[in-house]
Amino acid sequence: MQKNRLEAFSDGVLAIVITIMVLELKVPHGSDLHALTPLIPVFLSYILSFLYIGIYWNNHHHLLHATRHINGRVLWANLHLLFWLSLLPFSTGWMGENHFNALPTAIYGINLAACAVAYWLLVHTITCADEENNTLRFAIGRDYKGMLSVACYCLAVPLAFYHEWISQLIYLAMALVWVIPDSRIEKNVPKIPA
Amino acid sequence: MQKNRLEAFSDGVLAIVITIMVLELKVPHGSDLHALTPLIPVFLSYILSFLYIGIYWNNHHHLLHATRHINGRVLWANLHLLFWLSLLPFSTGWMGENHFNALPTAIYGINLAACAVAYWLLVHTITCADEENNTLRFAIGRDYKGMLSVACYCLAVPLAFYHEWISQLIYLAMALVWVIPDSRIEKNVPKIPA
Amino acid sequence: MQKNRLEAFSDGVLAIVITIMVLELKVPHGSDLHALTPLIPVFLSYILSFLYIGIYWNNHHHLLHATRHINGRVLWANLHLLFWLSLLPFSTGWMGENHFNALPTAIYGINLAACAVAYWLLVHTITCADEENNTLRFAIGRDYKGMLSVACYCLAVPLAFYHEWISQLIYLAMALVWVIPDSRIEKNVPKIPA
Amino acid sequence: MQKNRLEAFSDGVLAIVITIMVLELKVPHGSDLHALTPLIPVFLSYILSFLYIGIYWNNHHHLLHATRHINGRVLWANLHLLFWLSLLPFSTGWMGENHFNALPTAIYGINLAACAVAYWLLVHTITCADEENNTLRFAIGRDYKGMLSVACYCLAVPLAFYHEWISQLIYLAMALVWVIPDSRIEKNVPKIPA
Repeated sequence: MQKNRLEAFSDGVLAIVITIMVLELKVPHGSDLHALTPLIPVFLSYILSFLYIGIYWNNHHHLLHATRHINGRVLWANLHLLFWLSLLPFSTGWMGENHFNALPTAIYGINLAACAVAYWLLVHTITCADEENNTLRFAIGRDYKGMLSVACYCLAVPLAFYHEWISQLIYLAMALVWVIPDSRIEKNVPKIPA
Repeated sequence: MQKNRLEAFSDGVLAIVITIMVLELKVPHGSDLHALTPLIPVFLSYILSFLYIGIYWNNHHHLLHATRHINGRVLWANLHLLFWLSLLPFSTGWMGENHFNALPTAIYGINLAACAVAYWLLVHTITCADEENNTLRFAIGRDYKGMLSVACYCLAVPLAFYHEWISQLIYLAMALVWVIPDSRIEKNVPKIPA
Repeated sequence: MQKNRLEAFSDGVLAIVITIMVLELKVPHGSDLHALTPLIPVFLSYILSFLYIGIYWNNHHHLLHATRHINGRVLWANLHLLFWLSLLPFSTGWMGENHFNALPTAIYGINLAACAVAYWLLVHTITCADEENNTLRFAIGRDYKGMLSVACYCLAVPLAFYHEWISQLIYLAMALVWVIPDSRIEKNVPKIPA
Repeated sequence: MQKNRLEAFSDGVLAIVITIMVLELKVPHGSDLHALTPLIPVFLSYILSFLYIGIYWNNHHHLLHATRHINGRVLWANLHLLFWLSLLPFSTGWMGENHFNALPTAIYGINLAACAVAYWLLVHTITCADEENNTLRFAIGRDYKGMLSVACYCLAVPLAFYHEWISQLIYLAMALVWVIPDSRIEKNVPKIPA
């Protein structure tokens, strides 16, 4: 019961975050191809962030599917994650509008790192709230993948001032690594008729 | 369980996509009929896209109603569909603001074609994930209707540069063809007490 | 099962419609009371439309609570209702920005009339889809209340050009009449543990 | 059944309210740190309001979890609460854009007080609708915490004209007091498998 509403609220916030990002793609006044060119970096940053929100939604889905008990702390850890994800439309729009300049690229990396830390905190809070759930605990393990992500984002932030495209490549690479859903959980949770 | 959340997230994204399109109908400053006239093409393009989002929601509803098993690939195929649908407010607004000019009309057709391909991919991914579901497989069949749609949209894109209104007519005709919900599924799924 | 998703999608659209109306309350730049005064008519029109969306949500809730069977036609009748409701933010904003001038007031009345007709069509489609549901059929009865509403809105449209405030009073009066939830259904549906 | 839809609609509205507040963080055109400085007060006010919406969502979740029966009056008391919460993005944006000036700070306090009163009314309406639910009645008790909040917000409104930061401190302090979820209910409701 409780879990359902946590999922519903998170679904709502993520659905809005993923959709309002498209509002940064402002309708141009001209109707030729030149009118579209300034939108290309905004569009590319939109694709990247769409991928990230999709990843978080996917992993959130798998995580809560394996969860049985939640408590008040889980609700706040979840809100903390949603807070950082809700800032992604801003940092995405800023990065796109400035053609992937150094500072916006670094700020985007800080935002991604904060999301990753918040997700790690949520996993930790859930495993504490649901102590006897060995399936979940075993499936997550030491969470090397999560730690690696945070490390990569933290590395990408200073590198943005050296060359922006290195950071962009790191963001893209990490996204592609995570597109494969959190298979650690999927493998260990028996397939359930949908 | 899993299916519910996929439906809830898709409902959320589609509900937002269908609603933020109305934000393109910017409130005019004057209060006479002349203030409304520039909004007429925007309004017409809104009706067309509302119809299309409604069609996708309806068919998505029928498709998932007939689905029993889903997996991680289905989640991504669904996100891929939502990505193209989330671009509809942009292409709709651009087409409306430019009074159905050639290039925006062609871009709108590309967007519709991408949505149709993404839907076809989703159907394909679901039938793979849910192999023993003969009801669904039989109901979909060869999916001539889906293939025809993609072909029509692809035809409408170059025709927009010949004469925009031919493309518009194709979009409208395809919408009307699809307003009838995916009866292939509805007929073959027994009526269930709601 | 089917009904749940119809409810979820409608809830999503109505939640967004009711919330994006507040975006018309644009944050003023000054920080004194004079900066707020131009917002007063926008705020008043927001309250009126909030009331109307609340009424539609409430009655939609009661209606579907009493419904057992739905079909493809119900999905489209519901989308038709959502279409007219999705235009309320526009007509509300236009009316508020023009201090309840004649034409925007009349357009608002047309919008309300279209919503009322669409709701009546939805009720009709549901009673056809769910023929044996005598509870619902008996509860709705001849629907004099719905017919009266449409008649009042249609009367308010021409009256707006005679004097705007007569129409405004009619809109307010009809809202207050409907704030009492659709008691015809509530009375006839046995109280169910929530 | 009925309760589910009330929760879903409230989740939708709260998810949108919490997310559209981030739209006030307008993407700046420059790409250096100076471009970000005017956004700092807007960002701080966003954090404060995110916290408040999070608190209301959490308490609403606990309250309805303990509720068994609802009626038409509860639906309207809930909509009344959502009305005041839906105004938070406006008062937050106005306060942030004016660097926490006296009048916007006072208006923000009035908004918070109205939300607290509306929440109190909702609790009262639910305890009336669900009379035999002693768990809920006992858990809420005399609701000293709710009364104290209203008193504090009412105190903060005039104090804003003496010194804005006193009011800001009160808002922050009350938020931190409430971040601990409504433990009166959580303690008294047996832990339920999620």
